[in-house]
Amino acid sequence: MIRPLLPGHVRVVEVGPRDGLQNEQAPIDMATKVALVDALSDAGLPVIEVGAFVSPRWVPQMADTGEVFARIRRVPGVQYTALVPNATGLRRAIAAGVSEVAIFAAASESFSRQNIHQTIAESLVTYAEVARDAAREGLRVRAYLSTAFGCPYEGAVPVEQVVSTAERLRNLGAYQVAVSDTIGVAHPGQVWDVLAAIGARLPLSDVALHFHDTRGAALANVLAALQAGITTFDASAGGLGGCPYAPGAAGNLATEDLISMLDGLGITTGVQLDGVITAAVSIEPFLGHGLPSRLVQALRQRRSPE
Amino acid sequence: MIRPLLPGHVRVVEVGPRDGLQNEQAPIDMATKVALVDALSDAGLPVIEVGAFVSPRWVPQMADTGEVFARIRRVPGVQYTALVPNATGLRRAIAAGVSEVAIFAAASESFSRQNIHQTIAESLVTYAEVARDAAREGLRVRAYLSTAFGCPYEGAVPVEQVVSTAERLRNLGAYQVAVSDTIGVAHPGQVWDVLAAIGARLPLSDVALHFHDTRGAALANVLAALQAGITTFDASAGGLGGCPYAPGAAGNLATEDLISMLDGLGITTGVQLDGVITAAVSIEPFLGHGLPSRLVQALRQRRSPE
Repeated sequence: MIRPLLPGHVRVVEVGPRDGLQNEQAPIDMATKVALVDALSDAGLPVIEVGAFVSPRWVPQMADTGEVFARIRRVPGVQYTALVPNATGLRRAIAAGVSEVAIFAAASESFSRQNIHQTIAESLVTYAEVARDAAREGLRVRAYLSTAFGCPYEGAVPVEQVVSTAERLRNLGAYQVAVSDTIGVAHPGQVWDVLAAIGARLPLSDVALHFHDTRGAALANVLAALQAGITTFDASAGGLGGCPYAPGAAGNLATEDLISMLDGLGITTGVQLDGVITAAVSIEPFLGHGLPSRLVQALRQRRSPE
Repeated sequence: MIRPLLPGHVRVVEVGPRDGLQNEQAPIDMATKVALVDALSDAGLPVIEVGAFVSPRWVPQMADTGEVFARIRRVPGVQYTALVPNATGLRRAIAAGVSEVAIFAAASESFSRQNIHQTIAESLVTYAEVARDAAREGLRVRAYLSTAFGCPYEGAVPVEQVVSTAERLRNLGAYQVAVSDTIGVAHPGQVWDVLAAIGARLPLSDVALHFHDTRGAALANVLAALQAGITTFDASAGGLGGCPYAPGAAGNLATEDLISMLDGLGITTGVQLDGVITAAVSIEPFLGHGLPSRLVQALRQRRSPE
C-alpha cells in the first residue's frame, strides 16, 4: 500500500451562517448572526457565506442579511459572500458590499422546480443574467449544483445531467461549481465516478464539493475527493443545517470535523480548529437543539473509554 | 484519477451486544439482549460478539452473558463470540458454547493498567494461557488491540508499540488482531501509516480494524483501510457504545453506516441493511437516549432538502 498523494492545502468555504442557519426553525437575531460571522473570521476561514438575498417570504431566516453585512467586522483577505437568486438579489448584494455572490442550480428537474420554482433551463437563463451583471461590477460568481449525487424526488440523477449542468454553469461565468450532495446520499465510489466524468469536461480545479453528513460518509467522501485532486470543500460550523425535529440529526458536514481530519492528514487550511469550535458552540444556545457535529458532541462528554 | 482498487467482499464483526451495551448505563434485560442478537443474526451478520465473561463487579451489564448464550437462536454459519479476560472466563465461555473467544490487550501501558489492571506484558502472559487452553478446545481466539491510534491517558502511542503488541498477540495464537481506535481519534493518514508498519511484520489478512466515530472520521478511516487491503471491520448496530450523558454522542462506528457505504461501493457483506436498522431500532427504547447512528437519525426525520 502506497500512501495516496493528497493536496497540501485545502480551501474551506464556510456555509454555516447561510446554508446552516436557513434551515433552523428558531429565529436567530441579527446580532447573533453577526457574532457568528465574526467568530468564523477570527477562526481563519478564508470564505464565509454570510447570508442570502432571497425573498423573505421563502426564507424568513435570511431576511436580515443586508443588516448582517453592514455589521460584520471584515478581516482583510476573507471573502464574504451571499446567495443571490436573480438580478434583484444581486443588486441588494452589491449594495451590501459582498466580496462575491453564489447562484444555485439543480441537477434534477424536480428539485429545481421545488426549490426555485423554475426549470433548470429557466434558472440558467436567470443566472446568466446575474453572472453578466456581476461581471460588470467586478464580482466573481460561484455556483452550487444541488442534487448532484441524488434527488429527494427523483432518486438517482444521471451523471451526464450533472456534468452538463456543471459545464453550463461554468460556461455562463461561474468560476467554481460546488457539486453538492444535498441530501447526503453520496458514497466514495460515486464521488470518484462523478469527478471522473466532470474532469473529462471541466478542469477539476474549478470544482468544489459540498457534502451533507446524513449517512456518516461525508468525511469518507472528502477523502475520496482529495484523492481525485479536489482542493475546495464547503462545510458548516457545528454541522448547522440539521433538522430541529431530530436532535443530533446530521446536516452539513461540520467544519470542525473537516478541519480535524485535514489537520490529521497534514493538509493546511489556515483555519484554527479551536476557533471553529468556539464559533459553533456560541450559536448553539439559540438553536433549540444540540449541534450535530461529532467533534463538539465528543468534547462535551467525558466518556470512559472501552 | 484512477478509481482505487478495493476489496470485493468485507466481513463485518458485529460488536453491539458487547462493546456497545457494556457502555450503556441503563440495565438492559436478558430477553432484550437475546432479541437483539437474534435480530442481528437475521440481518446476516457473519460474526456477533454476544457478551463478555468478565467479572460482573467490573461490568455489571455483561453479568448475564451465559444466559444470553443459552437463549439465542443460533443461525448455522454465524460465529457467536464472547470476550474473555482469563482462564476462568474461558471456562465459562466454553460452557456457554461460544464459537470463538476474544481477548483484549492495549497498546499503551496506562490504558492497560486502567482497563484491565495489568501491565501489557502481564496481560500477554494471561492471554497466552487463554489461547493455549482455547486451542485445546478447538476454539479460535481473536485479539483486540486497544488504543492503537491514541490513548486517553498518554495521547499519541508510538507505532512501534502498536506493531510489536500486534505481533505478540498474533504469535501467542490469535488468528486476527482487531487494531482499535478506542477513543476515536484516528485519521486516514494514521491508518495508512499504522497499516504500513504492521504490514511489514504481519500479513494484513490477519488484521481487522475497529473504529469509533468520535470525530466523524470512522468511515473515512474505513475507506483508507479498504485501500490498504483490509477486509474485516468491527461495527456496532445503531452506533451503540455512545455515552448516555451526551445524547447523540458517537460511540462505535454504526453497523448500518458501514453497510450503507459498503453497499454504495459495491462491496458485498452478506448483511441486509434493513435488517441491521430493524435490530438497532429495537434496542433504542431500552437505552434512555437516542441512537448515535447517522443513518437511523436520518431515517427518522423528514428534512426539507436545501
